[in-house]
Amino acid sequence: MTSVKALLFDVFGTVVDWRTCITAEFARLAKKNDIHLEASRLADEWRAQYQPSMEAIRNGKRPFTRLDILHAENLDHVLAGNDLTVFSEAERACLVKAWHRLEGWPDVSYGLQRLKKNFIIAPQSNGNISLLVNMAKAANLPWDVILGAEIVQTYKPRPEAYERACDALGLRTANCMMVAAHNDDLLAARNTGMKTAFILRDTEHGPHQTKDLKPESNWDICAKNFIELADKLGC
Amino acid sequence: MTSVKALLFDVFGTVVDWRTCITAEFARLAKKNDIHLEASRLADEWRAQYQPSMEAIRNGKRPFTRLDILHAENLDHVLAGNDLTVFSEAERACLVKAWHRLEGWPDVSYGLQRLKKNFIIAPQSNGNISLLVNMAKAANLPWDVILGAEIVQTYKPRPEAYERACDALGLRTANCMMVAAHNDDLLAARNTGMKTAFILRDTEHGPHQTKDLKPESNWDICAKNFIELADKLGC
Repeated sequence: MTSVKALLFDVFGTVVDWRTCITAEFARLAKKNDIHLEASRLADEWRAQYQPSMEAIRNGKRPFTRLDILHAENLDHVLAGNDLTVFSEAERACLVKAWHRLEGWPDVSYGLQRLKKNFIIAPQSNGNISLLVNMAKAANLPWDVILGAEIVQTYKPRPEAYERACDALGLRTANCMMVAAHNDDLLAARNTGMKTAFILRDTEHGPHQTKDLKPESNWDICAKNFIELADKLGC
Repeated sequence: MTSVKALLFDVFGTVVDWRTCITAEFARLAKKNDIHLEASRLADEWRAQYQPSMEAIRNGKRPFTRLDILHAENLDHVLAGNDLTVFSEAERACLVKAWHRLEGWPDVSYGLQRLKKNFIIAPQSNGNISLLVNMAKAANLPWDVILGAEIVQTYKPRPEAYERACDALGLRTANCMMVAAHNDDLLAARNTGMKTAFILRDTEHGPHQTKDLKPESNWDICAKNFIELADKLGC
């Protein structure tokens, strides 16, 4: 692993616990409006639209569009599908901005601080720059640089997303390691020549999670969290 | 100034002392090759080609090109103009990479750490991402995010350079402050609606500097260094 100069991180699920935070935001708005709703189901439905909503951009049918805008469109669909008309425009905007305020898993901030000593650390996320900056300030994520969708102008798992991020650092893909809790993200990264590290996040989708419960290939590193990743990388 | 959420920094001259560092690199290579050369004059000649080399990109006659490549082209011109053929390809590449290793003025690292507590801090430089990341690691510059030429796909002082950087943060120009040691940079930033802070760097061009020795307009803040800037911004 001595050839690895930079660690590129998936963010949603790998760095931050989106489901707990988005569920709490729905629950808070329900209480404020004195209505009942299934907060975690709404969070799951919102997230379920995430991958499909990027597809038109990946295949070139829609110009590059920031995730904030996709999140807003997807929220409108979820609310309409659940006949939820009570939320004001300001409340919907606040929900969209909730993705800027997601909290890191407990090991993340300290783990990143250790990893930063030996490596360039950067998010390689589908999130837009402002989302990732605001999240970093709130969750104490000491990134060296913010890479991701707006820099590479496409969405993972397109190979260009990984290749352009490494190129922006002036590095070959072989000198960069993708860190993710998702086997499909790592597979796409490895296909571009990147090194790979699998992180186990077995409650990302709640207590009944059915996927990404184990590494599904011989990734270069497997770790249960960022502390163990730092240990295994000698940081 | 309570409306300011982000501070965007010019880098060459404002954050780092390029002339001292580039002069030292020329002097080191001269000693290694046992030749005589006027190191500071070569540094000045190299830097003098900086602005003209970006002009074709600003006016659209050349596609966007990273500063690393412009620096390499400009170095070749300077060496040829001085009949300096002694440097190997590896030595020329090392000189180009010297811009990744520039050292900050003495007040910079501590000043940025203080400013970071209250503001998003980011370079808005003509430097490319890898240059700015490597510089930040070496000179301990705790940026929240790296903005600049590669993000905005043009060079200052084009108005789009400032406007797109603010937009990437999800902010209006009025909520961002440009920090620079150069009056022309601040004028261009103010014309887009940004707030402005002038920093006095009266030895950027050596002991006989003739320009930017004082603020030439009523900038929102004038400070002698980043410590005084932090004081004036209440950090």
